[in-house]
Amino acid sequence: MPTATPQPAFVLVRPQMGENIGAAARAMWNFGLDRMRVVAPRDGWPSERAVAMASGAGRLLDEAGLYDDLAGALSDCTFVYATTARPRELTKPVLSPEHGMAEAAKRIAAGEKVAVLFGPERAGLENDDIARANTIISVPVNPAFPSLNLGQCVLLTAYEWMRNSGTVVHFEDDPRGDWATGREIEALAAHYEERLEAAGFFFPEDKAAGMKVNLRNLWSRMRLTRADVQMLHGIMRQMVRWKSR
Amino acid sequence: MPTATPQPAFVLVRPQMGENIGAAARAMWNFGLDRMRVVAPRDGWPSERAVAMASGAGRLLDEAGLYDDLAGALSDCTFVYATTARPRELTKPVLSPEHGMAEAAKRIAAGEKVAVLFGPERAGLENDDIARANTIISVPVNPAFPSLNLGQCVLLTAYEWMRNSGTVVHFEDDPRGDWATGREIEALAAHYEERLEAAGFFFPEDKAAGMKVNLRNLWSRMRLTRADVQMLHGIMRQMVRWKSR
Repeated sequence: MPTATPQPAFVLVRPQMGENIGAAARAMWNFGLDRMRVVAPRDGWPSERAVAMASGAGRLLDEAGLYDDLAGALSDCTFVYATTARPRELTKPVLSPEHGMAEAAKRIAAGEKVAVLFGPERAGLENDDIARANTIISVPVNPAFPSLNLGQCVLLTAYEWMRNSGTVVHFEDDPRGDWATGREIEALAAHYEERLEAAGFFFPEDKAAGMKVNLRNLWSRMRLTRADVQMLHGIMRQMVRWKSR
Repeated sequence: MPTATPQPAFVLVRPQMGENIGAAARAMWNFGLDRMRVVAPRDGWPSERAVAMASGAGRLLDEAGLYDDLAGALSDCTFVYATTARPRELTKPVLSPEHGMAEAAKRIAAGEKVAVLFGPERAGLENDDIARANTIISVPVNPAFPSLNLGQCVLLTAYEWMRNSGTVVHFEDDPRGDWATGREIEALAAHYEERLEAAGFFFPEDKAAGMKVNLRNLWSRMRLTRADVQMLHGIMRQMVRWKSR
């Protein structure tokens, strides 16, 4: 069963190698996409090689729609994006994957049925295919080395879908951090000051105040956890114990 | 010759298959990155398989730095990101590739030397590696299918670099910070480990390795300046001197 989340269909147009179809399935499912359509795969369907490569994402292949031609694959779609590596003769809006997927998310939220086309490995989509799309998506690559393969193009587009459709889990500052309180930091600072004073660290005397400020600044700047504070206490206690052995 | 554009170094830590090193080189160069460092590749160096896979990006392999250990690879770096698939026990900020690369671009614009670590194919980075990083980058994937491989992780990170490095933005982290390099942090960590070992701090023995990782993680997490490093060396030297009085 496909997931219930509304999402674009990714349409592989005349893909050649089964391995690449499998890799595309994995790339999609990594970012929560599971509606694949396959148009006239060169080596037939189902594809053993695709299944072998897809491993954990094999369900996408089982559930993929198979079509003889692109027109059939797009029959229920209201908006179509075509991914291309190079600019084409055809006059059409060209978006980055970022803006394309952000726009797609809005269209889908508004109830549209959206498809994204990916061309065959070697040559990419033909003008005939692109003519069926409303908008072009082009990945901005190094002009000196534009060599994305099918799986990579699917990966980046799926990634941008996840990033722009609000499904991204945003990480903040590590929430598991058991941060030390001001009181604990204060006790640590006092412990070090006391022991370092006894050990003759704050020398010469006219620099002592500045050295203490620097040390305190270090403790507060480094955002210590409780475990860190315990370790730092332990280090100092151990050095004191070692001396008195 | 590497391109003149300031950029992060991508560090492959103990990569296993040459093919994946080659794929990583292609992924980097697709987005204009060409500073690769390789730490202890399993199958030796240079790697024929890497060269065959890299095709048009072979120059990155010729110019890649080869290191025996991670400390060596990071010796000139002032800020280190570690890419991981899963959250770890180590407390550290976790950023998306988007936010991580935006931040990296700002750091580099401010003159810092930045590295991004990628772990070996099967197991990813170890805690020992992550302890040397300042911040974690985690790609937000489908929790039901988190299966990005090395090349894909490099691809997405490089893509975010390109997407985010065009925007020069205000740098919030204190730009006057005279940050310590990896070599200086490494020397500090070694100094503390040696002295604390002698003082009997790493006890009981079965906890010693974990304690050392936690201590190293603390040094890298707290973003030390050169002055901090000098002060911390001074603290330890003084405690040793104090004992021998």
